[in-house]
Amino acid sequence: MKNLTRADCEALDRDDPLAPIRDRFDMREGVIYLDGNSLGPPPKDAAERVRRMVSDEWGAHLIGGWMQNGWMEMPLKLGDRLGRLIGAAPGQVAVVDTTSINLFKLLAAALRMRPDRRVILSVQENFPTDLYMIQGLIELLGNRHDLRLVPEAELTEHLDESVALVTLTQTNFKSGFVHDLADLTAKIQAVGALTLWDLAHSAGAFPVDLDAAGADFAVGCSYKYLNAGPGGPAFLYVAHKHQELAHQPLTGWLGHANPFEFSNDYQPADGIRRHVCSSPGVLGLVAFEAALDALEGVDMAAVREKSITLGDLFINLVEARCANHNFTLASPREANPTPPYGRGSQVSFAHDQGYAIIQALIARSVVGDFRAPNIMRFGFTPLHMRYIDVFDTVEHLAQVLGRREWDVEAYRERKAVT
Amino acid sequence: MKNLTRADCEALDRDDPLAPIRDRFDMREGVIYLDGNSLGPPPKDAAERVRRMVSDEWGAHLIGGWMQNGWMEMPLKLGDRLGRLIGAAPGQVAVVDTTSINLFKLLAAALRMRPDRRVILSVQENFPTDLYMIQGLIELLGNRHDLRLVPEAELTEHLDESVALVTLTQTNFKSGFVHDLADLTAKIQAVGALTLWDLAHSAGAFPVDLDAAGADFAVGCSYKYLNAGPGGPAFLYVAHKHQELAHQPLTGWLGHANPFEFSNDYQPADGIRRHVCSSPGVLGLVAFEAALDALEGVDMAAVREKSITLGDLFINLVEARCANHNFTLASPREANPTPPYGRGSQVSFAHDQGYAIIQALIARSVVGDFRAPNIMRFGFTPLHMRYIDVFDTVEHLAQVLGRREWDVEAYRERKAVT
Repeated sequence: MKNLTRADCEALDRDDPLAPIRDRFDMREGVIYLDGNSLGPPPKDAAERVRRMVSDEWGAHLIGGWMQNGWMEMPLKLGDRLGRLIGAAPGQVAVVDTTSINLFKLLAAALRMRPDRRVILSVQENFPTDLYMIQGLIELLGNRHDLRLVPEAELTEHLDESVALVTLTQTNFKSGFVHDLADLTAKIQAVGALTLWDLAHSAGAFPVDLDAAGADFAVGCSYKYLNAGPGGPAFLYVAHKHQELAHQPLTGWLGHANPFEFSNDYQPADGIRRHVCSSPGVLGLVAFEAALDALEGVDMAAVREKSITLGDLFINLVEARCANHNFTLASPREANPTPPYGRGSQVSFAHDQGYAIIQALIARSVVGDFRAPNIMRFGFTPLHMRYIDVFDTVEHLAQVLGRREWDVEAYRERKAVT
Repeated sequence: MKNLTRADCEALDRDDPLAPIRDRFDMREGVIYLDGNSLGPPPKDAAERVRRMVSDEWGAHLIGGWMQNGWMEMPLKLGDRLGRLIGAAPGQVAVVDTTSINLFKLLAAALRMRPDRRVILSVQENFPTDLYMIQGLIELLGNRHDLRLVPEAELTEHLDESVALVTLTQTNFKSGFVHDLADLTAKIQAVGALTLWDLAHSAGAFPVDLDAAGADFAVGCSYKYLNAGPGGPAFLYVAHKHQELAHQPLTGWLGHANPFEFSNDYQPADGIRRHVCSSPGVLGLVAFEAALDALEGVDMAAVREKSITLGDLFINLVEARCANHNFTLASPREANPTPPYGRGSQVSFAHDQGYAIIQALIARSVVGDFRAPNIMRFGFTPLHMRYIDVFDTVEHLAQVLGRREWDVEAYRERKAVT
């Protein structure tokens, strides 16, 4: 891709089949939002829908809302709808609790299915909270298991028959590197281990096909590329093949076979339902539903194509316009429309002044984020991002660098002079 | 209390110091709501506040909302505010996750603090989901513990030095009987066991004083007497004295001492913060905040006084007007303004046709609920209930009985004739 002018970018936007989708989101004038990989923007009707839920459902129907408004069934109904985006046939996904808590449930379920194995294998680059949850479970179980953390690139070398379970975040939160889900699932299963995928930066970002990969378990969050709002409800996936044997330990009443019998003994419900624990938080689920509606009819392959083009354009423009500023690409350069994806839907650059540069960009309403020690993250979310946004971001970045706006001292002095 | 006329009830409402509080809630004309003990009604401004949160916080500030709108700190900030209602000084309450999940966290933390004891003691009448959570944890820990369930009335006879932990729902969900929290806490602690209270039907219903009782741990839900909406966020309490030693196993990133360091090893935060696991669900917390505002300045002792009067009035009217209909009071008759409370804030009657009678009342927009096998529950929620509501409920009940509206066959025939 040669470097494009702003006019070229405008032309790309005119021809973009996904361009109308932006209108489904509440995007404000003057903001370039490159952090949809951390918190997606609100679907345009989300505000009105949560207002209506309180007034026209909760207020009007009170306790009756659980049945009349279908609140009770939302975790599974929305799970089935989400299934389309992550390649899960109906009956395998529940929208429930948080990513960490769902991870805990399925870690415990998986270890129970491999009682003679003691190793949980993951990578040093995994998202830390996933590692913390594993550590918490291992300690709870009396330190009989071993969390083995290896470099991402060496993972498969450490697969052997001591491994009960491999848990990975498919997309590296710093670099945006995407593991090949199908290929790794096959290699992991070849040694008799189970897979537990965290789809945090994957679901809604590019096509994921859990069923086709023969994946065992997965979890994910809804507030990144799925746009369901801050701390929105998470999801979990249990493949049909494991549903009878998968017993998770957070055995709350809504996972009971007959919750309204109020018997004193837990009996797990069949299927995915046993992984629901408590009465669902309806407000969060209503926002989740609005988010799924905003993705309705969207072709994830087209989303992937556009995210590659946006990312490539950004890399090329940064390298052309910000040369000699010591940016190091911290994401894979290669991005493919089908697995192995290589780079996901974000581009990271390492820079010694990364934190200050991100702050200077935010001051210009160009919103990326920073991850220690030196990673500037830019998320490319094709549902609401335009090619001109990429062009303008690099224009801002070049100005920040040219004016040394990241150097607060120098910037203040200069402002004082002018 | 002698039986009152409707005019007497109108006079009581005129003199009721809590009467103006009803206006803080979205109460609809023509509905008598006796199920606020299952799902409280919306605070009047909750709908608008969740709309504004989406539009003016999430939409306007995007990722910046976590700091600019204080989302990140809501679990502890709201916990401190809730503390006033449950007798907890600041720094001991977090609003987080669900009641069941919080119970799991604190069960595990408590067992770890009593490594040489093997018994978890509870009562057969406890809310079943609490028992299910205990069963799930025991199984996860390899069945090394024993859940001993005894009749409510015999609890203290079973206290001995094998007991690690006693967990009780303070208020019996069927009968409304309220355990004496301070008295039992002292007796339980006298054998060296820890207490874990579930305040599901207590918080917001009458004064609870955890600190004064020297309670160890507590959990509770927000959608009953606290009116925070269906499946709203729950809370947990860890007494200051235990905060250093209480280690819960759901060790998510927000419970880390330095969450934004993204180190690979979990280090628990000090204090109550380690009991927060994941990024909080902000929509639910905003509704929770509206619910706390609706309780602002309300004197819980006055709430208790009114709930006793409402309940006594109901019992007297039912027994006077529905005599010979085989109702059996299934709640304590005695209700005291201070502990031991006896009856809580609901009145239950047992009746063979209880289910059908409740359905017939609901058809008249008089909303109570039913719990198997034969319990009709009527919740008395002084924040939004009037004395005339009690009078009118019994009028409806008498008509349902007189016309045999609960007998669907007979009712249909009669309707066909008239």
